[in-house]
Amino acid sequence: MVLEKIEHENDIKRINKNELPILAEEIRSFLIDKISKTGGHLASNLGVVELTMALHLAFDLPEDKIIWDVGHQSYTHKLLTGRKAGFDELRKYGGMSGFPKRHESDCDCFDTGHSSTSISAGLGYAMAREITGEKYKVISVIGDGALTGGMAYEALNNASKLKSNLIIVLNDNKMSISENVGGVSRYLSGLRTAESYQGLKNGITNSLNSIPKYGERIVEKIRKTKNGIKQLVIPGMLFENMGILYLGPVDGHNIPAMVKLFKEASKVEGPVLVHVITEKGKGYLPAERHPARFHGTEAFDVETGLPLVKRVKANYTDIFSTVMRKLGDRDEKVVAITAAMADGTGLKRFRNMFPERFFDVGIAEEHAVTFAAGLAAAGLKPIVAVYSSFLQRAYDQILHDVCIQELHVVFAIDRAGLVGSDGETHQGIFDLSYLSCLPNMTILAPKNKWELSDMIKYAVDFSGPIAVRYPRGEAFDELKEYRAPLEYGKAEVLYEESEILLLAVGSMVKTALTVRERLKEKGYSCSLVNARFVKPFDEELLLKLQKNHKLLVTLEENVQSGGFGEHVLEFMNTSGDGSMEVLNIAIPDVYVEHGNVELLRKETGIDADGIIGKIIDRKAQ
Amino acid sequence: MVLEKIEHENDIKRINKNELPILAEEIRSFLIDKISKTGGHLASNLGVVELTMALHLAFDLPEDKIIWDVGHQSYTHKLLTGRKAGFDELRKYGGMSGFPKRHESDCDCFDTGHSSTSISAGLGYAMAREITGEKYKVISVIGDGALTGGMAYEALNNASKLKSNLIIVLNDNKMSISENVGGVSRYLSGLRTAESYQGLKNGITNSLNSIPKYGERIVEKIRKTKNGIKQLVIPGMLFENMGILYLGPVDGHNIPAMVKLFKEASKVEGPVLVHVITEKGKGYLPAERHPARFHGTEAFDVETGLPLVKRVKANYTDIFSTVMRKLGDRDEKVVAITAAMADGTGLKRFRNMFPERFFDVGIAEEHAVTFAAGLAAAGLKPIVAVYSSFLQRAYDQILHDVCIQELHVVFAIDRAGLVGSDGETHQGIFDLSYLSCLPNMTILAPKNKWELSDMIKYAVDFSGPIAVRYPRGEAFDELKEYRAPLEYGKAEVLYEESEILLLAVGSMVKTALTVRERLKEKGYSCSLVNARFVKPFDEELLLKLQKNHKLLVTLEENVQSGGFGEHVLEFMNTSGDGSMEVLNIAIPDVYVEHGNVELLRKETGIDADGIIGKIIDRKAQ
Repeated sequence: MVLEKIEHENDIKRINKNELPILAEEIRSFLIDKISKTGGHLASNLGVVELTMALHLAFDLPEDKIIWDVGHQSYTHKLLTGRKAGFDELRKYGGMSGFPKRHESDCDCFDTGHSSTSISAGLGYAMAREITGEKYKVISVIGDGALTGGMAYEALNNASKLKSNLIIVLNDNKMSISENVGGVSRYLSGLRTAESYQGLKNGITNSLNSIPKYGERIVEKIRKTKNGIKQLVIPGMLFENMGILYLGPVDGHNIPAMVKLFKEASKVEGPVLVHVITEKGKGYLPAERHPARFHGTEAFDVETGLPLVKRVKANYTDIFSTVMRKLGDRDEKVVAITAAMADGTGLKRFRNMFPERFFDVGIAEEHAVTFAAGLAAAGLKPIVAVYSSFLQRAYDQILHDVCIQELHVVFAIDRAGLVGSDGETHQGIFDLSYLSCLPNMTILAPKNKWELSDMIKYAVDFSGPIAVRYPRGEAFDELKEYRAPLEYGKAEVLYEESEILLLAVGSMVKTALTVRERLKEKGYSCSLVNARFVKPFDEELLLKLQKNHKLLVTLEENVQSGGFGEHVLEFMNTSGDGSMEVLNIAIPDVYVEHGNVELLRKETGIDADGIIGKIIDRKAQ
Repeated sequence: MVLEKIEHENDIKRINKNELPILAEEIRSFLIDKISKTGGHLASNLGVVELTMALHLAFDLPEDKIIWDVGHQSYTHKLLTGRKAGFDELRKYGGMSGFPKRHESDCDCFDTGHSSTSISAGLGYAMAREITGEKYKVISVIGDGALTGGMAYEALNNASKLKSNLIIVLNDNKMSISENVGGVSRYLSGLRTAESYQGLKNGITNSLNSIPKYGERIVEKIRKTKNGIKQLVIPGMLFENMGILYLGPVDGHNIPAMVKLFKEASKVEGPVLVHVITEKGKGYLPAERHPARFHGTEAFDVETGLPLVKRVKANYTDIFSTVMRKLGDRDEKVVAITAAMADGTGLKRFRNMFPERFFDVGIAEEHAVTFAAGLAAAGLKPIVAVYSSFLQRAYDQILHDVCIQELHVVFAIDRAGLVGSDGETHQGIFDLSYLSCLPNMTILAPKNKWELSDMIKYAVDFSGPIAVRYPRGEAFDELKEYRAPLEYGKAEVLYEESEILLLAVGSMVKTALTVRERLKEKGYSCSLVNARFVKPFDEELLLKLQKNHKLLVTLEENVQSGGFGEHVLEFMNTSGDGSMEVLNIAIPDVYVEHGNVELLRKETGIDADGIIGKIIDRKAQ
């Protein structure tokens, strides 16, 4: 095994050149084997095995700074920097993260998770290097999908000012998570088919040798040349127009060609973009054929590529998908928007049925929201389907373009609450806080699958900014009998008794059922209310129920600060008669790392045990 | 007066062509006269007089949709749509807004305020038009500065998919609020100097006549031509690479040339960018010479251009400016970042003294914050100076790139609290809510000018994410004697008595002084504490003071939801002995319109009268 020789960063440099292709194959086998057991990001990692090896051969770690945009493609990088043992506990609680983490290795120089940040961070390192007079190289590795994000463009625009070297590796696999769209995508597609790439693919890299020196002059020089080399630079006009030298494209599975190009690129005085073409899922047929399915995968059978655990119950995304199809059918004004997440948000079926009313805007949440505001201003009914943690990207647009104008934009917020193995960057535990402080916003959360369906319909028939937030994973399918029509700002009483009043938001209703049963076993009398509306919440009901309850317990899968509980407390403090105490159960003020969601709930104290403990503590006071 | 003939939209179309230049001059005189009295945005409005007239001549309002990016350049548009009388009460409480407002006129189709939203909104209108089968035209008018914002690029990338017409008018005045920077700016500068523009400036627009038809073919056609016309399209490669047809540049003070080009542009089937060159401040010499000073101006003397009211006291921005100079001098690791607001944030002096440690990134808050994170990861001490409402643009970057990694980025948040005449879009009343729910974040607010200075120094010497928020305008210069060194998480007791405890955040300390005096006159005993730290706040002190106070009153210039008061209440509810009641005074759950800040404080109930009323009400319960 060549892979056994790799114990630390830079060990790869001692591997015989002939053995590099063998090492690449061993890494692939290792990744497929490990991820088939733990789950994780497969397709993107298989695509960058040789690219990562070439980077580690061309540069010195940890001195040089490699920043992995998004970061879920950093598995080979982790392998090559002595973290092989970590793969058994990949994305498990307390185990190795699926993303670069500064606290994990000094070869990880910047934590990533969300898209399009790497050029900004890389430029920060490069500018700091100019100021401090250090000598390290900075390499930002960014996917073609991430290039559709506006902040990548903001960074490119600024990079052009740089006087010293910054290498931007464009890892172009013709897709991000879903298929790419838009002008830049079409543009890149043109570059890929340029004759130069065909040449490179056949191993003919010597056209580059004829370029004596890189820098400002190269552009001029090559523009004047009338032979094939022209294609190497001319296609990069988009980048050159912004002052970024373009080199490529190069075959992202040809290690020597990449190493050569990276070494040349590091001689450029200024920013340089190296266009690398890779194949997502490379080397594992099921992943090559279904890169989207193997983007982030659960444990699977290596032979067949099929999931080990067959999903029996529908998850919330499936429910959303179904209701969207129905709504699309019923109302021609319904349009759906996603930021590169047609699959993940469940909009694929809507897209297939109503292609003219479906918009995948790329990884561009800011545009997605203001675009939706424009659609709403023009009289349509836009639904923005988005993960909770990615909606953070469009905060100002929600506040400024949707809520001030009171436009009827529906936010279908998936992955709200703890999401599990993706960790800190992906937990959807801030939305209730950052949304509920916005005037004119209405926020709902469903207790079960039927209520999600009802709420999406309600939201589409509403008028004004409205958000429905629901968690990742299996949809709760009990309490079917509780399906009274939704009424603006009204909660739903599930069990009315006395003494303790559990007021649960969305996913916490399920937990509250257990809490209530166990409290009753302990002899407490306990009511349970499903909040339904987080904003505005049901003030009237609370004033009524304070008469025969001594303790109100709010339950939410969101940070406590600025969440549902604090608002309820504020209301009871101002308008209540003071007879009912309030206990807020929510996620504490820390970033929650990766791991099984049940475990994370326990760790953050929002599981049944934790909640019961807190209630009994409070009662004892 | 030609202007007298303009009473409604489209009236301009009945004006004799020969009278149009006269009308332009009359509009200029009108704007200079009115703004010299009320204050407002002058330079940008003087720059677009002819551009606006040409748009109103070429299109039909309100059917066609003109979206003004940022929107503070919409004064001529307001004049031409029957709002002449509104200028006497421009930006006054209850009067006409300085920005487009849908509720003000049906000729305002989309509210704006922050930068770079117009193409997204316009694309929304255009796509809705395709779906509903309507026929209106959509025109997004965007400045060259706004093009540095990432969401404009996200929108351009998506616009390329459009099959029907969308006109993007690039209002290029060679600057936004400050001078522009970066690759796009350099690129546009190249376009401006192209020979074609020189030709257009001399009135030679006939080169355009030789282009028979616009559309996909024009590009091909002109690329093959080898005469001077080539320059008309070839310079637009940046946009064409993204699938946007480029037309121009055209002289933005030549009405017939623009009308002609707009009419031609509306025939294009797809997105088309019309590059219009305008001069900021045009027609008023002081504004032409000092466009930045006349960007947003107070009332001024028309003869001299000097402000009518001479500023005597320093404002918080001045104080920040001074301390930054000192810190830059003292510590070579201190670097400063602004998103196109070197002037507004007070960084101009720092820029002049330490140009190599100053970064103006353009209107690109997202990049600004992650770039700062990169600088911090590399060991420098970045200070991001930004207005509160604009920081909303970088919410995910604060959460994801700074706070998760606990990087030492200092946020100097100017214009926090009510800002006055800019209105809803610019009020800085959400930052305490959206920042305090972020783990690892520290938040401070100064009571007076000396404390701002101390807090910025403290923040630079700190380690980890830290924000100092301070209001617009005159710095409070009393309480100089209270200047005990800052201590992490510790508040400052200004007056310790008993009964009522006023706990004030930043700007509210000044108001609290008045409140306290008047409560004492009424016979109450009243303590006053300056919170200093909003997060973490001084829990220990509160537990101590609950012993001899019956009512704790929190005071903050931020919305109540998720603000300081709710967190304090939550803490006292959980950890207090229940003997001290809590009353939270904050801004209610509404967007606050434009107007004098004192008036807005009164309207939102956070002035001394409002606060005293609430305290007495509460005491009476």
